[in-house]
Amino acid sequence: MGLKEQLDYLFNPRSIAVIGASNRLGKWGFIILARLQASKSGKPLYAINSHENEVLGLKAYKSVLDVPGPVDLAVITIPYQGLIEAVQECVAKGVKAAIVVTSGLGEMGGEGARREEEMIEIARQGGMRVVGPNCLGHVDTYSNVRTVAFLPGLKRGSVALISQSGNSSQTITQYGGQMGLGFSKFVSTGNEADLHFEDYLEYVGDDDKTRVILGYIEGLREGRRFFETARAITRRKPIVVMKAGRSDVGIRAARSHTAALAGSDVVLDGMFRQCGVIRVQEISELVDVSVALLGQPLPRGRRVGVLAMGGGMAVMASDAVRREGLEMPALSPATMDKLDSVMSDRWSRGNPVDPGGDLISYQALWPLLEDENIDAIIIIGGVGMIATFPNWVKLPASAMAGAAQGRKAIEDLEMENLKKTIELMKKHRKPILFTSQVTGAARRGRAYNMLKRSCLSFYSNPERAARTLARLVEYSEYLGIAPARYP
Amino acid sequence: MGLKEQLDYLFNPRSIAVIGASNRLGKWGFIILARLQASKSGKPLYAINSHENEVLGLKAYKSVLDVPGPVDLAVITIPYQGLIEAVQECVAKGVKAAIVVTSGLGEMGGEGARREEEMIEIARQGGMRVVGPNCLGHVDTYSNVRTVAFLPGLKRGSVALISQSGNSSQTITQYGGQMGLGFSKFVSTGNEADLHFEDYLEYVGDDDKTRVILGYIEGLREGRRFFETARAITRRKPIVVMKAGRSDVGIRAARSHTAALAGSDVVLDGMFRQCGVIRVQEISELVDVSVALLGQPLPRGRRVGVLAMGGGMAVMASDAVRREGLEMPALSPATMDKLDSVMSDRWSRGNPVDPGGDLISYQALWPLLEDENIDAIIIIGGVGMIATFPNWVKLPASAMAGAAQGRKAIEDLEMENLKKTIELMKKHRKPILFTSQVTGAARRGRAYNMLKRSCLSFYSNPERAARTLARLVEYSEYLGIAPARYP
Repeated sequence: MGLKEQLDYLFNPRSIAVIGASNRLGKWGFIILARLQASKSGKPLYAINSHENEVLGLKAYKSVLDVPGPVDLAVITIPYQGLIEAVQECVAKGVKAAIVVTSGLGEMGGEGARREEEMIEIARQGGMRVVGPNCLGHVDTYSNVRTVAFLPGLKRGSVALISQSGNSSQTITQYGGQMGLGFSKFVSTGNEADLHFEDYLEYVGDDDKTRVILGYIEGLREGRRFFETARAITRRKPIVVMKAGRSDVGIRAARSHTAALAGSDVVLDGMFRQCGVIRVQEISELVDVSVALLGQPLPRGRRVGVLAMGGGMAVMASDAVRREGLEMPALSPATMDKLDSVMSDRWSRGNPVDPGGDLISYQALWPLLEDENIDAIIIIGGVGMIATFPNWVKLPASAMAGAAQGRKAIEDLEMENLKKTIELMKKHRKPILFTSQVTGAARRGRAYNMLKRSCLSFYSNPERAARTLARLVEYSEYLGIAPARYP
Repeated sequence: MGLKEQLDYLFNPRSIAVIGASNRLGKWGFIILARLQASKSGKPLYAINSHENEVLGLKAYKSVLDVPGPVDLAVITIPYQGLIEAVQECVAKGVKAAIVVTSGLGEMGGEGARREEEMIEIARQGGMRVVGPNCLGHVDTYSNVRTVAFLPGLKRGSVALISQSGNSSQTITQYGGQMGLGFSKFVSTGNEADLHFEDYLEYVGDDDKTRVILGYIEGLREGRRFFETARAITRRKPIVVMKAGRSDVGIRAARSHTAALAGSDVVLDGMFRQCGVIRVQEISELVDVSVALLGQPLPRGRRVGVLAMGGGMAVMASDAVRREGLEMPALSPATMDKLDSVMSDRWSRGNPVDPGGDLISYQALWPLLEDENIDAIIIIGGVGMIATFPNWVKLPASAMAGAAQGRKAIEDLEMENLKKTIELMKKHRKPILFTSQVTGAARRGRAYNMLKRSCLSFYSNPERAARTLARLVEYSEYLGIAPARYP
């Protein structure tokens, strides 16, 4: 059985047993079974518990061997003392894959490491693949098999997340949800005693549902294989990684966390670059970059046009763009003429473009998209939010009556302008990064939601937008879409 | 009349006229008058408009000279063509302070600069102080005078914000609101043709309602005075600034924005350090640092203890702490013993403290607060959110019944533990930075809201927490509370 078939059993099993299923709130065996019940995959679920007759409304079996039908996937949550026996029974039952949540194994060293080896040896001889141990579970939003308790409502989409930390995934997916990101698959890899990061990477590389791959990495067990696999994948779809464990204390902590060999950070940096992997520095950037990769064309160069409502934002955006090593060229004479004709004489007459007290108009944005000196645009404030304008101010009732009428018309116009903008963005293949703090009323606007659905989410500040754009530029340079500079 | 009395007229006038008040949605004169009406200060409001008989339900006067009673504050929103005449009339009327929103003046150079000089000369001779021109207005949450349209619902509190960019203030205050920050005063300084950043700084330095001063700066007009004023203030209350315009393009943009002399960034950096001003790099950090300054004791050193739910978070937090130049010392033997006795044998047995799969317990946090090797704590995940636990998982109805009961008890315990934690924090004078993505259900929890009210808000990632803590440490070193290292 090849890796693909083995992992198909993991992500889309015909039936699932929870070994350690519990009625006690707070126990992993409670949370995971409850999560599986709630996700309504339609797959038969079996509760295994040696002391109970019933768990969460299901008949409980003393052992997986007592289950009447076949079991493809077992989720094991019992303490390590009973683990070897449970794995032996899984193998005897013909279970194809086990997710071992149990901790106190390889990450403890000594006795724990020996227990882990023994367990893996049994699984290997029985032809059963193992996720973990010391992991949080997995999610497949297409088969609707969700064993991870702490990722409520992971939306279906096209991002696969492979994570060497369970809790970090929670941060990534929650923030991803806010930015409109949907996921195809998720796996918490734990100690990687059997299945390695590289196995999952190879699998999602070939997964039709996955368009972007995210990795949270503390250490790689098969560096060479990672390199070869990633190099092949990044020609077709982007891989974005956060590699933690850079500092002295961080490396030490990583070692004790998932028994990972943290490796030299500088060597890894070079390796990532050479195989086209996009590396980010904070986990929020994993989300920022994925959103942009899904919603935006890759830029053809590093020349940025900034359109900012308010001079302060123009200054900060310029600082941020330059700090990322991107360029802010002069606008072409044709663009200058066009902008002179649509803006008041208070406009900044250069890049960054600041209308000088007016709202940003699409008539100012479109010429930038057409300017041959510009490869990408960062736009700050205004666009997409104008529709919610009357909500910004608490108006007296008399004014509101008129405003409500005006609002519908403003919103219609905004939608029309945004659609034209997206068409131009695609036509000219120039990414547009929208930047704004989007609050209450604006979040309910049609324009905002249309943008979010198109993965054109708003970055909350220009620094985030510039950082994200820089990663797109580097990837584009790697692929040869932009002139080479990515070393 | 001294500066204090002059600015008292600005922030707490007896009456206000809007020159350029308008019935047309989108006009500054519409938004500002509507905002003043909505904020219900109880001060008489006068609409000045030469074409209308009534504006937003108020009788409209052709000129400020026609207003029957005295006018302390005038907000001028008319185009620059009529500005000189309007200012002459204000002076004739005996107006004490004018906020000039009008743009097309000093920031344009040439003719605009000459107009600005003429206007200021008239005001000066008439004894009227001027905010702006080319500014967005101001807010005093105690007198409830709010002329800025775009800062909806600025909560009353103890942070004063002086900003050389109107739009940036919107970002700062919106984000501040999310983090629980309240404001005492706000002013958008515009071109600073008359009143300078340094005037407002001196004023809020002596304001009883203000405990922390935030500044967004592009350039200082009175560097020496800033230094002297700030040095005196920072002994009593902290000043946090974001100085934009660091890069080549940013400096150029700053110059055209508010006619600011951006000055050498390196020189300013040294100047800020020498007068104890806390400088941050992104505007979100202005908020992060203020929240911490309000809610936390200043640390007595740079030795950090990290308590993280999940090894991945422990690794990332360690990286972040070290990147900021903070230290992560070994725990004292006494602390090790205490932690051994309250945690499972899976805990990390060192700093960072990772419980190894369990939730973070207060029994693990409290010994860190008592450890003489530790000056500050970053805590990641769990605490304060446990109360919302049953909401993390969509549970089947059968389980929810039991969970709902359990939840109340869990929440009560959580509140009790948090209160004890805050007491210990104060007693040992060790800041605790809470780090977590707080989403939907958790935001409604009692524990979360109690923390937010106490300015113990959650930082969304460990990098933000570490960055914030580093700024507290530097200020503490400047004040001599921590051993000197702040140069």
